[in-house]
Amino acid sequence: MRVTTVEHSPAGEQRREDRVAAEEPLEIRLAWPGAAARRVWVTMRTPGHDFELAAGWLLHEGLAGLADVRTVAYCTDVDLSPQEEFNVVTVTLGTAPARDVSHRHAAASAGSSACGVCGKDSVAEALSTPRGRRWAGPDPDADVVRALPDRLREAQPVFGQTGGVHAAGLATAAGELLVVREDVGRHNAVDKVTGARVLAGLAPAEAVLVVSGRAGFELVQKAVAAGVGSLVAVGAPSSLAVGLAHEAGLGLWGFTRGARTVRYV
Amino acid sequence: MRVTTVEHSPAGEQRREDRVAAEEPLEIRLAWPGAAARRVWVTMRTPGHDFELAAGWLLHEGLAGLADVRTVAYCTDVDLSPQEEFNVVTVTLGTAPARDVSHRHAAASAGSSACGVCGKDSVAEALSTPRGRRWAGPDPDADVVRALPDRLREAQPVFGQTGGVHAAGLATAAGELLVVREDVGRHNAVDKVTGARVLAGLAPAEAVLVVSGRAGFELVQKAVAAGVGSLVAVGAPSSLAVGLAHEAGLGLWGFTRGARTVRYV
Repeated sequence: MRVTTVEHSPAGEQRREDRVAAEEPLEIRLAWPGAAARRVWVTMRTPGHDFELAAGWLLHEGLAGLADVRTVAYCTDVDLSPQEEFNVVTVTLGTAPARDVSHRHAAASAGSSACGVCGKDSVAEALSTPRGRRWAGPDPDADVVRALPDRLREAQPVFGQTGGVHAAGLATAAGELLVVREDVGRHNAVDKVTGARVLAGLAPAEAVLVVSGRAGFELVQKAVAAGVGSLVAVGAPSSLAVGLAHEAGLGLWGFTRGARTVRYV
Repeated sequence: MRVTTVEHSPAGEQRREDRVAAEEPLEIRLAWPGAAARRVWVTMRTPGHDFELAAGWLLHEGLAGLADVRTVAYCTDVDLSPQEEFNVVTVTLGTAPARDVSHRHAAASAGSSACGVCGKDSVAEALSTPRGRRWAGPDPDADVVRALPDRLREAQPVFGQTGGVHAAGLATAAGELLVVREDVGRHNAVDKVTGARVLAGLAPAEAVLVVSGRAGFELVQKAVAAGVGSLVAVGAPSSLAVGLAHEAGLGLWGFTRGARTVRYV
């Protein structure tokens, strides 16, 4: 979106047009044979790759695996305005979800642009983590890890225009980026990466998930649910993130900037 | 928390102890005369200033104003372990909340460390914003704005130890910081700042709210709900953030780093 700004710098004041990253709400509805579509989540996100965001979020929540998604579509409710239609996505599963939606994701639960524990209804639920199959392939070495954030940045078109979006990417142990997605919400970017794999019929896991921000607990949860081998972050991990990564056997790297990276062992 | 790390840099590998920012879930329960305590939110947060986090979140959600909070206490349920007791906070109001909790914040709704729209059950709810009284005092000039992020950083004890937490601060138009709070979640830090004022019996609004991250829609919502005059961010704003700030008359400054800042006019 184009906006008018006044930049204040040592060179003085300069009025100009600038671009800001788009942010709009997305409502995810879930349906399956014999069950009407029900709202399971609302998040603030950068529009685009919405079907991937929905599919990836469902996988990370343990609600739908690789073979479960039958269709993903924008909503065509008669009571939605044309603009709102593109802010509501309905995912239809082939069978009832693996976990109890009505317990974990009641109609009123809602999320956010950086929401990993949304929809969970207690402290215990917030800490429970669906487990993907452990990555059995090769792991990256430190040189590959150090190079990943720069490669991720080069693959970010929206960041170049706005400076205002996070990114996530899935990479091989040799450092080849397979898919990169951007979003104003760093958790959404990871959902989109996993969803891109799911909708392409590919396993969500690879050697490395690289993210442009911090490695909080909820991002480690998503990495474990997807079954990736290692999580590489530009920023710092939290205490719970380190604990869950160790417990789940996930490789965890933080402060990956320039020639430096820190592995939490 | 202390963890073991291996740092990879041009100087080689170095094994050492490091500190990471604490992150644990917090459940907020709400009670009022004639109503049993009910769960309204779960967020991942850095422990500390938990009562402020609860009070500030309730104010930003339009559920409890300055005069409504009677008591805030850790939970003493017999079924909670000693550790869990400090992860559950109950806020008791003097009267029923101003908005319908059962509609907006059903028992199953839950949040996250960076959750502003959690508990809202549709796209329309996500966009609705409680309005505080508009700040009527003086506004900061560009020189004051540019100096605020460095002052905020200097007032961050946990960041210095871990490099892994966000901060928010409330400042006068002259740039004096009145209260600074840190958290792994940038939205939590803002909730804690507002809650600190509320629990001290002070108005939540001042000339400037300064934050260490981006200015997303949900942070603008909190600033508008608290009634501050301007939001100053180190990072970029989003499209919806710019839109709401204009509509609500909130001053919005982004990319405030070093000698530069950008005002969205």
